[in-house]
Amino acid sequence: MPKPELLQHLAETFSEKIPFNKYIGLEFTELDRECCKVCIDHKPELVGNFVHGILHGGVIASAIDVAGGAMAAVGLMERNPESHPQELLDKLSKLGTIDLRVDFVRPGRGTRFETSARILRTGNKVAVVRMELHNEQRTLIAVGTGTYLVG
Amino acid sequence: MPKPELLQHLAETFSEKIPFNKYIGLEFTELDRECCKVCIDHKPELVGNFVHGILHGGVIASAIDVAGGAMAAVGLMERNPESHPQELLDKLSKLGTIDLRVDFVRPGRGTRFETSARILRTGNKVAVVRMELHNEQRTLIAVGTGTYLVG
Amino acid sequence: MPKPELLQHLAETFSEKIPFNKYIGLEFTELDRECCKVCIDHKPELVGNFVHGILHGGVIASAIDVAGGAMAAVGLMERNPESHPQELLDKLSKLGTIDLRVDFVRPGRGTRFETSARILRTGNKVAVVRMELHNEQRTLIAVGTGTYLVG
Amino acid sequence: MPKPELLQHLAETFSEKIPFNKYIGLEFTELDRECCKVCIDHKPELVGNFVHGILHGGVIASAIDVAGGAMAAVGLMERNPESHPQELLDKLSKLGTIDLRVDFVRPGRGTRFETSARILRTGNKVAVVRMELHNEQRTLIAVGTGTYLVG
Repeated sequence: MPKPELLQHLAETFSEKIPFNKYIGLEFTELDRECCKVCIDHKPELVGNFVHGILHGGVIASAIDVAGGAMAAVGLMERNPESHPQELLDKLSKLGTIDLRVDFVRPGRGTRFETSARILRTGNKVAVVRMELHNEQRTLIAVGTGTYLVG
Repeated sequence: MPKPELLQHLAETFSEKIPFNKYIGLEFTELDRECCKVCIDHKPELVGNFVHGILHGGVIASAIDVAGGAMAAVGLMERNPESHPQELLDKLSKLGTIDLRVDFVRPGRGTRFETSARILRTGNKVAVVRMELHNEQRTLIAVGTGTYLVG
Repeated sequence: MPKPELLQHLAETFSEKIPFNKYIGLEFTELDRECCKVCIDHKPELVGNFVHGILHGGVIASAIDVAGGAMAAVGLMERNPESHPQELLDKLSKLGTIDLRVDFVRPGRGTRFETSARILRTGNKVAVVRMELHNEQRTLIAVGTGTYLVG
Repeated sequence: MPKPELLQHLAETFSEKIPFNKYIGLEFTELDRECCKVCIDHKPELVGNFVHGILHGGVIASAIDVAGGAMAAVGLMERNPESHPQELLDKLSKLGTIDLRVDFVRPGRGTRFETSARILRTGNKVAVVRMELHNEQRTLIAVGTGTYLVG
């Protein structure tokens, strides 16, 4: 199982070092072997439907993809417990989304949104992750399923 | 069939009035009854994988969703040729993505990306659209399929 | 909320009156407002990979689609509590799958498979349902998400 | 490039040796490096909606998955031109669908249906394939996208 400090480092890397995550304001609030949580505050520049002021579908898809990818990264680390940090970094730098489905179940109304991700299956090549995005009132806004290349 | 000036107006609205589209730099270069093209220049803030400098999957998903939504809007206009502009605007303001699948077939390397969208089916409730995103060398980077609520 | 005898009738209709469901052996073991369960026994004619004797992906997709559709039918009934039976039957006969995603997370090994479906959202036009298929040892074999036209 | 007789053998294997393909009547009418075509005749036992007599969504999903998988198999063979037949057979026996999306764009009316598949991308681990299913009048009934594990 990955060490807490390694997971902490991974969460910081995702929040701070990935330019687009920073640009739209994705923050990792939790990252452990069970679950990953990514939050984003609603801001004027993230609006999609200007009549209703709701969150853009692309922002929702981004949050969902990022949460799923982080969870796949944890899965990859769990399967490679003995790897040298550099080797692990190498593997992580090659991790990528194969495909993503997002279901927009309700309009993206709210002030703060949280995406949680849960691994369905990690293999030595592919990880499958399910994601849910809620607003601050715990209304389900979107769900997603992503397949990630992990080896 | 929607009048060219109406389509021009729609393209400008999508590029200029939708905050997130403007924030990431999506430009509509074509919008007619057959096809919609949306371009985006690569910029440092759109990077996902900072080791390789490639486009973030969320940006790809955003471009693909926007191109599909615009195409669904054209489909909606085609099915309501007699609608009063205000009524049409009302309908357009309710248009939304039901679900989206994106397949990331190659890493997002390049300087400028173009998403094209083509309608597969417009019904009076749902439109299905297929999208492709290429870089400036016409390398296929991603494909998508979206289902949109149009009525 | 739909009456138990109406749900019972719906489950029998799905099992007995839909030719393909009967042809492959889908049985409804539960159908209420919360959840739908559909079972299928492994049989030689349902094999996909003849080297390993595992269940064909098309059978898995079928079971997942059917469970999701039944759940969407329950959602439709819940939203139309005052409808006359004939009117309801009319609506049900028009219910259809818009799109379906299936993730095959593990090979389809086992002797009996159970698909459970849970509604994520029912609107007056579209229902979104999530499905899971397990074998008799509760190993997760596949998950799915379906969008259904309900109005 | 795979030899024609090898492709012929593959098509026969898919049609004749995969029990469920035979059970529902899938026939391979074309299989080359560009495209794969799989046909199925409408039969009473393949009906989904008994009010309208249309093809069951699970049959459509099955045909689409099978055509995509065959195309992925061709991609795998193209990438392993030097492999010994037994080694190739080993690889083929491990080929599997990772995930599948099917969009049902029109009701499955008709007497004979043809699914065509076209590869979008073959890597050394994953292949992405797009599929379309038409009826005998060339009406588009469904489209799909599948991701297959090929290595």
